[in-house]
Amino acid sequence: MKNAGIISVGTEIMRGKIDDTNSTFIARWLKDCGIKLKFRLSVEDEINDIVSAIKYIEECDLIILTGGLGPTKDDLTREALSKFLNKKLVFQENEWEKLKYFFNKYIKIPIADSNKQQVELIEGGEFLRNDNGTAPGMFCNVNNKIFILLPGPPKENQPMIKNYLFPKLKESGFITGDIYTRVFRLYNIGESTVADFFKDFNEEIEIGYYFTQTGWVEIHLSKFITTSDDLDKIQPIIKKAENILTDNKVFFTEDKDLSQLVLELLIKNNQTISFAESITGGNISGEFVKNPGSSKALLGSIVSYSNESKQKLLCVSEESLLKFGAVSEEVVKEMVIGLKKTIGSDICVSISGIAGPDGGTEQKPVGLVYFGFMFGDKLIVKKEIISGVRSRIIVRCINYVYVEILKWLNSK
Amino acid sequence: MKNAGIISVGTEIMRGKIDDTNSTFIARWLKDCGIKLKFRLSVEDEINDIVSAIKYIEECDLIILTGGLGPTKDDLTREALSKFLNKKLVFQENEWEKLKYFFNKYIKIPIADSNKQQVELIEGGEFLRNDNGTAPGMFCNVNNKIFILLPGPPKENQPMIKNYLFPKLKESGFITGDIYTRVFRLYNIGESTVADFFKDFNEEIEIGYYFTQTGWVEIHLSKFITTSDDLDKIQPIIKKAENILTDNKVFFTEDKDLSQLVLELLIKNNQTISFAESITGGNISGEFVKNPGSSKALLGSIVSYSNESKQKLLCVSEESLLKFGAVSEEVVKEMVIGLKKTIGSDICVSISGIAGPDGGTEQKPVGLVYFGFMFGDKLIVKKEIISGVRSRIIVRCINYVYVEILKWLNSK
Repeated sequence: MKNAGIISVGTEIMRGKIDDTNSTFIARWLKDCGIKLKFRLSVEDEINDIVSAIKYIEECDLIILTGGLGPTKDDLTREALSKFLNKKLVFQENEWEKLKYFFNKYIKIPIADSNKQQVELIEGGEFLRNDNGTAPGMFCNVNNKIFILLPGPPKENQPMIKNYLFPKLKESGFITGDIYTRVFRLYNIGESTVADFFKDFNEEIEIGYYFTQTGWVEIHLSKFITTSDDLDKIQPIIKKAENILTDNKVFFTEDKDLSQLVLELLIKNNQTISFAESITGGNISGEFVKNPGSSKALLGSIVSYSNESKQKLLCVSEESLLKFGAVSEEVVKEMVIGLKKTIGSDICVSISGIAGPDGGTEQKPVGLVYFGFMFGDKLIVKKEIISGVRSRIIVRCINYVYVEILKWLNSK
Repeated sequence: MKNAGIISVGTEIMRGKIDDTNSTFIARWLKDCGIKLKFRLSVEDEINDIVSAIKYIEECDLIILTGGLGPTKDDLTREALSKFLNKKLVFQENEWEKLKYFFNKYIKIPIADSNKQQVELIEGGEFLRNDNGTAPGMFCNVNNKIFILLPGPPKENQPMIKNYLFPKLKESGFITGDIYTRVFRLYNIGESTVADFFKDFNEEIEIGYYFTQTGWVEIHLSKFITTSDDLDKIQPIIKKAENILTDNKVFFTEDKDLSQLVLELLIKNNQTISFAESITGGNISGEFVKNPGSSKALLGSIVSYSNESKQKLLCVSEESLLKFGAVSEEVVKEMVIGLKKTIGSDICVSISGIAGPDGGTEQKPVGLVYFGFMFGDKLIVKKEIISGVRSRIIVRCINYVYVEILKWLNSK
């Protein structure tokens, strides 16, 4: 197994201004490529520190440096690698012409002389094209040890890795296949439970569990493939993984936001939607409009946060509010019926609950939530008790609503 | 100036499962303490890799290792440091009693024998108390070089750094004062513009600019202080910084979310609020309810996404919609008046705009937004053209609304 080291260069990382997300991205990519990451390092833009870092990890087969490829005198990564390899940096006239063209076309300010250092190439190296910025990357194969320079901004280096570095590593025989990845997003389930379901899943495939801050768990199944035969062989393994999820009654989606999947299906079915939100205060509707084209399906929503607004905007009866309370089966039912009458969308959803930290009682604890759904004329009420702090309860409510709608739309 | 190195240990970081946010947090903290961070490293839970990493940075005055203090056989950080220092790990009976008590009281499962390694102390070292988990940290002063072990979870190590490590470093004379930090949050302004305002601000204070994903820029003014005299001396500097912002007409707040500041003022004034949202689809209202106690001020909101819902829910006239279009001064005015009539809150806000990517024209481009405010009976309409992609336009709209409300509330 080949191994690798990453060196991220920059003051912003060393002073805690930004997280080193580049290294995280590259680490995950290396894992998917079947390459072992042995070292991750960060240093300031100081030439001796960069050279010393390269020396420290020079045993690695692949050494990736990110950042410090800009036009200023603080950008020293090229120079440091040149010093370490004891190879000259040579100005490339034809690359300079390309850079001038890029400036003229996209940046629309005159190019400065300082940009010239960006088109200096280490002897024997090759540029990696940058489709999204001015700094090209670099690829140097020195005695079968590969050194890579990548620009710092993720929107520049991520496409560069995918479109130019990966093919280059394949071409040079360092990587001998392609990465196949399938992602499942799982809702309302913990990472350890998922890992448990897969404990006997001893297939020839890399499996990773990623917990996200937005309330779902991702399973990444990835495998290095070299032929179309390999790809065929993966399909039953993916199917088996899907079956494990299905058998355990876990709801999962592909690698897209829930609200986007709902929107796509609604547009396809030519259906409309609206929400009556109490506990979530507009966040379910708000999530929906983050998707371009949401106006094709969302008619409107009502945030009935106070009892008065529930009566006024959704015709909930005062009697029900007094008798059952705002967080009750009866009230979400009246809310969703009121919404249907007022807005008249094909799908109507209501929600009421206690987000905390205050307002809970023994009978109605923090985390108690009622959901009302009207799919056409079919009315469904659901009840859940969601654990966690206020922000988590709100996120889980949003996901819960979209999961229920998706289940319904998928069953049609 | 003293210098430091950080080694974060763990498979999750090396496989790109999580960002190394611990090192970012510590990097920022070190900067505030006036200590230069020279190296950041990450390695797997392999004893030889950890020892080699410590050797690489052993020139540093302060060496901080995070992660790998758990009870499993993969947790090897303690052992690695013991090997590097050539000092024994010694089981601590009294710490074991404390850990058993913690398990019994908070974790409620029987303690395992494997937990014993967590209370092994390097000869001559001291424990750093963990108020939020089972793994104590460690502090070793060896010939005036300080080695620190911290547990991996941020909710455990951050309070440990603040409450135990920092005082310990002060007590041992490594740090000779306290950190004073003042944070300003700035809205609707770029990082480079802010830096420009402060280019002649040559005061004896550390100044940092942090761009956030949530649409604001933070300025951190921090200074190491040793006496109350020092603290007095800072006040005019802070005042000067505030004046620079005020003179440049930059709106800024303290280190709290805008919607939280609005909620606090509304509660103080005993005032209520409601929103009529088109372009933001519920996100302004949704932001508000993320704050505990929001029900004390928010009566309700209306998401009038379609023209029909604007007419039906907010009594916007069909004539205005036809004549001026949904994104117009006239329509936001009617929306906010309709909202006032329907919900009757003290403050009413309406918003309508074009979030894109489609739907823009030459006269009404993507990013055009109208805002309507009713503060009591006073009606104000504002117009903005916001640049950027859909998600950024929505975030900027949310901030814009809260900034305007805050300005109004602060002016009363």
